[in-house]
Amino acid sequence: MALANTTFLDACAGRRPAHTPIWVMRQAGRYLPEYRAIRAKVSFEELCHRPDLCAEVTRQPIDRFGLDAAILFSDILTVFDAMGAKVEFTPAPVVAEPVRSAADVDRLRFGRADDHLGYVYDAVTACKKELDDRVPLIGFCGAPFTTASYLVEGGGSKEFMHIKRMAFAEPALFGRLLESITTVLVDYLAGQVRAGVDALQIFESWGAAMSPADYREHVLPHLRRLVGEVKQHGVPVILFVRGNASLLEQARELDADVLGIDWSIELSRAIEVVGRDRVVQGNLDPIALFAPPKQLEARARAIVAAGREARGHVFNLGHGISRHTDPAAVARLVEVVHGA
Amino acid sequence: MALANTTFLDACAGRRPAHTPIWVMRQAGRYLPEYRAIRAKVSFEELCHRPDLCAEVTRQPIDRFGLDAAILFSDILTVFDAMGAKVEFTPAPVVAEPVRSAADVDRLRFGRADDHLGYVYDAVTACKKELDDRVPLIGFCGAPFTTASYLVEGGGSKEFMHIKRMAFAEPALFGRLLESITTVLVDYLAGQVRAGVDALQIFESWGAAMSPADYREHVLPHLRRLVGEVKQHGVPVILFVRGNASLLEQARELDADVLGIDWSIELSRAIEVVGRDRVVQGNLDPIALFAPPKQLEARARAIVAAGREARGHVFNLGHGISRHTDPAAVARLVEVVHGA
Repeated sequence: MALANTTFLDACAGRRPAHTPIWVMRQAGRYLPEYRAIRAKVSFEELCHRPDLCAEVTRQPIDRFGLDAAILFSDILTVFDAMGAKVEFTPAPVVAEPVRSAADVDRLRFGRADDHLGYVYDAVTACKKELDDRVPLIGFCGAPFTTASYLVEGGGSKEFMHIKRMAFAEPALFGRLLESITTVLVDYLAGQVRAGVDALQIFESWGAAMSPADYREHVLPHLRRLVGEVKQHGVPVILFVRGNASLLEQARELDADVLGIDWSIELSRAIEVVGRDRVVQGNLDPIALFAPPKQLEARARAIVAAGREARGHVFNLGHGISRHTDPAAVARLVEVVHGA
Repeated sequence: MALANTTFLDACAGRRPAHTPIWVMRQAGRYLPEYRAIRAKVSFEELCHRPDLCAEVTRQPIDRFGLDAAILFSDILTVFDAMGAKVEFTPAPVVAEPVRSAADVDRLRFGRADDHLGYVYDAVTACKKELDDRVPLIGFCGAPFTTASYLVEGGGSKEFMHIKRMAFAEPALFGRLLESITTVLVDYLAGQVRAGVDALQIFESWGAAMSPADYREHVLPHLRRLVGEVKQHGVPVILFVRGNASLLEQARELDADVLGIDWSIELSRAIEVVGRDRVVQGNLDPIALFAPPKQLEARARAIVAAGREARGHVFNLGHGISRHTDPAAVARLVEVVHGA
């Protein structure tokens, strides 16, 4: 069945839809009372494992705001289920047994995503049904380095000491870990596409933990392989490498359909860096949603205007929305972007 | 009395000493057993208030490594004493009453540094005596925005929601807060110079919390004033704005003698950005100290070589040293830099 709203896919393909499409990173989340109502009944883990509830929270922001794309409710760490790694959300993720040595890497499973992540594919199917072809559905995963960083650090990190030490002191082990993770991610995204997602976003949340030279040497080859293999499935691929100001020049080398831009760089400057022949996504500072309405409008309009210099532009925040955001500010933002 | 080792001050002045001088951010700290021995006896707060112990821990890394400059042992938040703001170290700093409203700002004192920070000046005097003119002593403060961010957020932060909301929604209040803080900082650094420091470093640790456009509009004018007024004291001023990749173009506009470079940018690229007529400081990734010796050497030599393209170069890490660092790696680093 044809999608009712194709603005997002049109923009991803470099066409110019009637309005700039918008979705919001973490749009299904804690800033929404209807999401909190569901989370009052189930844990985050249980929510990720319940396709019916995933579908419901995925749909919530579409109903409320008229956004132009939905993103699957899930977590970048669900993929650990295919690796035999255990993670708890406290709410910050904590990996019970961090992966620091060759023996630790050997203990991981790196199995077929299909054998372990069926519940995510079921959630995709449920989301597609729930969305009823109103808007496209975006699937996603963490990039190889970001995924590895949680495994090796054992959770979030400030210094990324353990994973960088592994890269610097045991580059072969680090390379084997990232290669194995990449293989699982390729498999996992293929499964999401088979289950019905219309586009994919790869989140490199922690890439800026590496200096540009180290990123290029140790990380970029794996990300290049992931993007290359995933592109074969025929759905648009959005690559969001946070820490743009230092890593955007490397992200642009990859064959992603859309390059996500964070708010650490002006969008017009980002477009100069990636080239006007590329499609970009971004990049409103999430905290701008706390600004007075007129200022929020002016900031949003400036980004829409800057986006016109690229081959295509999907409006988004430059980072995930804050849980403290007033939903009314998101409603205003969508209205401004659609009317700009 | 003349300093025995002037390599650091020579490099700051754009001269080329016989070897590249090196000091290390957080060089007096928890990675040193002799520092931990003192901290086993006194709290961090007490240590900051004890000039004799400040002098001892300031001297420790000079004795052990033969570094070319000492930096006063203190904290960027001691200046709160001149503002009537209370902070506890748990060990992360926690401000009891975060400053969020006009009434909160009005409750702050913004007094004379001399009336409240005499213990820091006493520490400077004690350090100078303890160092006995072997190497110069660097004093420091946090930049106005970084200082304000702790006051407003109530500690460290990921999103910097409160201070950015203040800047966006109440720019006049934000401006008044930063202006008042800047006045105290000017006073405080003047006092440090009178007490005997040979150079000053301004730490803008959290500048990258602001997008480049917001930094320019809301923050840069205050930092410009601070640098300008502090320059009048005749000691070299080092400006370290972390988040170089996005903010270095603004840092270079200021009249600091030395521009600190973090590890998010290659030093050669940073020198292109700031211009070859500037003196730079940096920028080894602190986690490179965990790399095998030959790799650490190669990284250090590459940075020394890149630094030759600038008018002057002070070797340093691109961020504070990790508490998990092996002191032997620092010893190797100093040897390599001095021999390169």
